[in-house]
Amino acid sequence: MKYKKIDEKDIQFLISALGEDRVFVGGNINEDFSHDELASVKRMPDALIEVKTTDEVSKVMKYAFDNNIPVTPRGQGTGLVGGAVSLHGGIMMNMSKMNKILELDEENLTLTVEPGVLLMEISKYVESHDLFYPPDPGEKSATIAGNINTNAGGMRAVKYGVTRDYVRGLEVVLPNGEVLEIGGKIVKNSSGYSLKDLIVGSEGTLGIVTKAILRLIPLPKKTISLLVPFNSLEEAIETVPKVIKSKSTPTAVEYMVRDTILSAEEFLGKPFPDKSSDAYLLLSFDGNSKEDIEKAYESVAEICLESGALDVYISETQERHEAIWSARGAFLEAIKASTTEMDECDVVVPRNKIAEFVKYSNELQKEFDIRIKSFGHAGDGNLHIYVLRDELSQEAWEKKLGDVFDRMYGRARELNGQVSGEHGIGIAKMEYLKQSFSDEHLNILRGIKTTFDPKGVLNPGKVIV
Amino acid sequence: MKYKKIDEKDIQFLISALGEDRVFVGGNINEDFSHDELASVKRMPDALIEVKTTDEVSKVMKYAFDNNIPVTPRGQGTGLVGGAVSLHGGIMMNMSKMNKILELDEENLTLTVEPGVLLMEISKYVESHDLFYPPDPGEKSATIAGNINTNAGGMRAVKYGVTRDYVRGLEVVLPNGEVLEIGGKIVKNSSGYSLKDLIVGSEGTLGIVTKAILRLIPLPKKTISLLVPFNSLEEAIETVPKVIKSKSTPTAVEYMVRDTILSAEEFLGKPFPDKSSDAYLLLSFDGNSKEDIEKAYESVAEICLESGALDVYISETQERHEAIWSARGAFLEAIKASTTEMDECDVVVPRNKIAEFVKYSNELQKEFDIRIKSFGHAGDGNLHIYVLRDELSQEAWEKKLGDVFDRMYGRARELNGQVSGEHGIGIAKMEYLKQSFSDEHLNILRGIKTTFDPKGVLNPGKVIV
Repeated sequence: MKYKKIDEKDIQFLISALGEDRVFVGGNINEDFSHDELASVKRMPDALIEVKTTDEVSKVMKYAFDNNIPVTPRGQGTGLVGGAVSLHGGIMMNMSKMNKILELDEENLTLTVEPGVLLMEISKYVESHDLFYPPDPGEKSATIAGNINTNAGGMRAVKYGVTRDYVRGLEVVLPNGEVLEIGGKIVKNSSGYSLKDLIVGSEGTLGIVTKAILRLIPLPKKTISLLVPFNSLEEAIETVPKVIKSKSTPTAVEYMVRDTILSAEEFLGKPFPDKSSDAYLLLSFDGNSKEDIEKAYESVAEICLESGALDVYISETQERHEAIWSARGAFLEAIKASTTEMDECDVVVPRNKIAEFVKYSNELQKEFDIRIKSFGHAGDGNLHIYVLRDELSQEAWEKKLGDVFDRMYGRARELNGQVSGEHGIGIAKMEYLKQSFSDEHLNILRGIKTTFDPKGVLNPGKVIV
Repeated sequence: MKYKKIDEKDIQFLISALGEDRVFVGGNINEDFSHDELASVKRMPDALIEVKTTDEVSKVMKYAFDNNIPVTPRGQGTGLVGGAVSLHGGIMMNMSKMNKILELDEENLTLTVEPGVLLMEISKYVESHDLFYPPDPGEKSATIAGNINTNAGGMRAVKYGVTRDYVRGLEVVLPNGEVLEIGGKIVKNSSGYSLKDLIVGSEGTLGIVTKAILRLIPLPKKTISLLVPFNSLEEAIETVPKVIKSKSTPTAVEYMVRDTILSAEEFLGKPFPDKSSDAYLLLSFDGNSKEDIEKAYESVAEICLESGALDVYISETQERHEAIWSARGAFLEAIKASTTEMDECDVVVPRNKIAEFVKYSNELQKEFDIRIKSFGHAGDGNLHIYVLRDELSQEAWEKKLGDVFDRMYGRARELNGQVSGEHGIGIAKMEYLKQSFSDEHLNILRGIKTTFDPKGVLNPGKVIV
């Protein structure tokens, strides 16, 4: 696919559409916009623009389509697979100034937002109205459109599901600039193929989300956390299928190991309640009455103790609860700060295969003599496994990372897992997506991309080519 | 699109693939297979086959694709929009003998089933294991694949969501005969465009579901129903947004009027607990403890009484609970039995617009001098409104039905509703789908159909052409 290189005429069009102060070129573009959080793929856009209205998005997109210029939409750049990097240059569309909460509808339990609203703003806003937006990825400074585009899951997926389950309607600008209204404030929908569900998880390759109608639920009145120490990670993780089988429904089940906790303590400068053991499960339970939650967690505490837990620490106060979960939220940053560069494997496997997968990745650590750190959503089978470069040369790093990833993704396929649980494919995981699907499956993905974007101008080089 | 007419050679192929006893032609095909539950669209298939394995489905589909013969998959024929009618003749593929429950996985909380398993079989099976498959459409003798293909919602969507939310993985035979495995026993997935969510709700036009992995949750230990009489339907329905706003979460909120109840009593030959009032709300609440449920329903009962309810009858026993809900489940059949022919409007509108929509359809009853009956899911905005033919001539019926539907679907669009909440588009609602979407939207639907089915051989003439 040959794209037109941006020239002075294009810049003038952008300035005429948005004003001079929202168009950046050359040295005026901050280096941050050349990469996302993982930073292993870098490319500067030729022009960076800030959009403020759907109409602006539509106008620029139509121009780019007509002139064959690639456009890369971008939120806060917190992605981990290069999805918001302008791989082919062209225009980068910064959506983060479209950041208004438009409407809370308490009769329909919906929240209508612009794409650039941050996850932390949404939770704060709705919780102040006694309402709840359950998806809870670790990165609270991500935009809602970023979450929609990766179908982010987060910690509460065990009980509440993922972002997809909380999107009722979308406004989307198509690659040719047309504006589509999909779904709405409706609870059910069986009116043609679900474009809403195609856009969710499409990583900005099918359309640009300019508005979202989110589903809210009543805020649970009470939350309790259990921090459960074990002698070994395997013992900890092997307990999870027993918890699931017991028919109590935790809100979240995370696992963590001591050295990740130590990194997080150092990173945050705050002590973690306990770090005497090698491995921990962190569970939370929510509900409307203390009694109901107690019933659920007491049976789970018993299962943990029967499975080798050394103790069960209960955090009933909001303060202790937040101390633990903020440490959990900082794991990624903490691990990142401990090395020179890293890459991540975000596979999802059936819940009863997590122990096997974590054990396997620990073995790789020894076999390849490279640091591998992991933490993750034990309750939903979604692992976050980080391979650390430390002092390896560029060449040695690329070789080792490639070898280790080949083995990990291969193992995930054998366990009937999928390439990405919630971080998406972007650029970084395209090869593994290809390996995990049949040609037929890949051709259908390509056909869908072509249906939405016949000229391939929207976020090219991501997910599928 | 020109299709090949089935000839003796094709019949011989089918017999060689399936055996003589599973291939029916001409007069050997039961008339039932010419229509679905609504019966306003009729066409006999040229050949009816019973399939028993994915391999058979794949083999026949490949043959049909290569030879340009249309194939219509069919479950129990309980649809209401002609989705399982072989509009262009060809092969009808009866999936109902692929009806085995394959695996209950208690560690991953999944149930793997063949497409022809009935909804009532699933609930019975999983509940005997203390597990719960929440989707609960009125028609319990529908197949699970039928439910998946319409993204059926049912009564418990208020609290638990719709079929889409409970499908984790699918095995699908594509129009060219290739077999696709999508998703799996996984809780999260962000690995390319979600084909799983495209197949859900695609009414058998993109692929044939041959296996499904369903998500289960723990069975709530207790359920309580409230039957709440009101002086008028409007008063009843106007109470619903107040209930939603109150942040209690009922499992279901249905509305009904006296003459529908009387029809159901007559149809079932069983008395309904109360029929002294003109209109009723029927609510249910579930949970794990009596106390928690009580807290929720007490506040709702109060809201109802403040909004004009004449009383609140509480059904705590399983027996009374079932008596009421089985009456509710029989409404469609009861209304159908009361007239010569009928057609249905299954729109979904925002929950706070239901009262307005029901009022509007009642006015149409008078304006057009035609009987219109409705009941439906007040809690999720999905109405089921039936226009009854009674003694009208064919010509007068078609004219009136067309006029009434034009008005209803027009009003639904004005209220930001969608054409179908859960029964789908099939043949009967294609025109209204067209009116409700932009050309751009329709073109994308067409592009998706072509991507999956370039020759248009799978269930042609449905959803979108």
